[in-house]
Amino acid sequence: MNKEAPIGIFDSGVGGLTVARKIFEILPSENIVYFGDVGRTPYGPRSKEIIIQFTTQDVAFLAERDVKFIVCACNSSSAVALDEIKKDYHIEMVGVIDPGARAAVEKTKNGRIGVIGTNATIGSNAYAHIIHHIDPDLKVFSLACPLFVPLVEEGYVDKDATYLIARDYLQTMLDVEIDTLVLGCTHYPLIKHVISEVMGEDVTLIDSGEETAREAQRILTESDLLNPASAQPPPPEGSRKYYVSDVPAKFSRMASRFLGHEVENITRVDISKY
Amino acid sequence: MNKEAPIGIFDSGVGGLTVARKIFEILPSENIVYFGDVGRTPYGPRSKEIIIQFTTQDVAFLAERDVKFIVCACNSSSAVALDEIKKDYHIEMVGVIDPGARAAVEKTKNGRIGVIGTNATIGSNAYAHIIHHIDPDLKVFSLACPLFVPLVEEGYVDKDATYLIARDYLQTMLDVEIDTLVLGCTHYPLIKHVISEVMGEDVTLIDSGEETAREAQRILTESDLLNPASAQPPPPEGSRKYYVSDVPAKFSRMASRFLGHEVENITRVDISKY
Repeated sequence: MNKEAPIGIFDSGVGGLTVARKIFEILPSENIVYFGDVGRTPYGPRSKEIIIQFTTQDVAFLAERDVKFIVCACNSSSAVALDEIKKDYHIEMVGVIDPGARAAVEKTKNGRIGVIGTNATIGSNAYAHIIHHIDPDLKVFSLACPLFVPLVEEGYVDKDATYLIARDYLQTMLDVEIDTLVLGCTHYPLIKHVISEVMGEDVTLIDSGEETAREAQRILTESDLLNPASAQPPPPEGSRKYYVSDVPAKFSRMASRFLGHEVENITRVDISKY
Repeated sequence: MNKEAPIGIFDSGVGGLTVARKIFEILPSENIVYFGDVGRTPYGPRSKEIIIQFTTQDVAFLAERDVKFIVCACNSSSAVALDEIKKDYHIEMVGVIDPGARAAVEKTKNGRIGVIGTNATIGSNAYAHIIHHIDPDLKVFSLACPLFVPLVEEGYVDKDATYLIARDYLQTMLDVEIDTLVLGCTHYPLIKHVISEVMGEDVTLIDSGEETAREAQRILTESDLLNPASAQPPPPEGSRKYYVSDVPAKFSRMASRFLGHEVENITRVDISKY
């Protein structure tokens, strides 16, 4: 495997950019190829079969870009599709569920963990499954919050309506007295302040994307696959390439909100061909 | 053309069922084939090119069902794709834009019309284009309300958050003193009461779907294509068939909210093959 090859990151759309951002911070010298399936976003409300079909195409596209490692930055794909697809490739892959689940187990003191995400992620019970595999005595409470993604995408990150909806959704989490809450969707870090205000300061929020970026660093280090340029200053912006399955304009607009800076190098790809 | 052949209705998902419901009321004896592209919904935030690609497949699927007439119940498809696709078929087709636009022109007294819809519909300027073609002196104010679709789909049809968001969106419509507002998205009739409360009783709301059902009746009558059974009592439920591009479970759940009754006969189809 070529150490200078890029890391491939994919997501159903723009949400995975919160994971990409953490990877840029921790591994600034790595070359990155990001694929966002904006032409078929969101995955969260869809069935397992459709998510497997779409994710298979996303991975095939990245594999063709000769990536050395794949980060599945989509919780819905990680929850229902990644394990099946992994088997068909020699490229190592990591999803966002395992790292988030493990971090929650480490953080909880009262043994009561909450998980919020899309319908697909919550319906799969993937977080609870991994948490119970580590410690069967922990209590896990899972809740789908389907309106959070459109609210974030419409820039409703600091509006009264968003606080109202968050209080609606999260009241049951307050009732069951969790002390740790997993943000099981890559859009949610953008409304972390809202979720934090509703849950109160005694509840630790786990950002699955952040944990995944650390896991990627660990695996690449152990597999001796870090880019040799890693010790040097960050490479030029050109080593970060973005591919999307619809016209780049909307992705470009949203990307700056998710990444905190403008992006270039956005190429459109017909994902239905993969 | 076989008069007993079904009418084909399609939409990006469940929204078109508000149009189907009106057609059931006005033309109870017609056989109906409904296709909902729930595996790729929503179309509204996507680009013109992607919407044309998806709509072409939707129409190809219905054409293969030997329909006598096609109702494009999706505003986004009607706005950006239908005119292009029509040319390739001998089947007559009607979209939701023309009937809605014409009804608004008839209703307005002060010559100031508002149009709300998805990003694709509003970005296309399709309503304004038709309204100005009829009367260039009318003033048209258009506004995208992207959160209305997810709010309706999550059942947030009577919550404080929905009223807050509606007030946010519609304030500019109040400022410009329209007297007629076109609901340019088939989801919006489900929050008509919210929109009506925000706009006040002096503003007439136009339901494009309802106008389209009447237009379908008019065209079928003029073309002598009404099902000869029309004068008789409604046919059995079996003559209404539903096809969807993801597992039927979620469609089935939402359909009863949109139609007011349970649906059967839901078949899954792989739309990517068309």
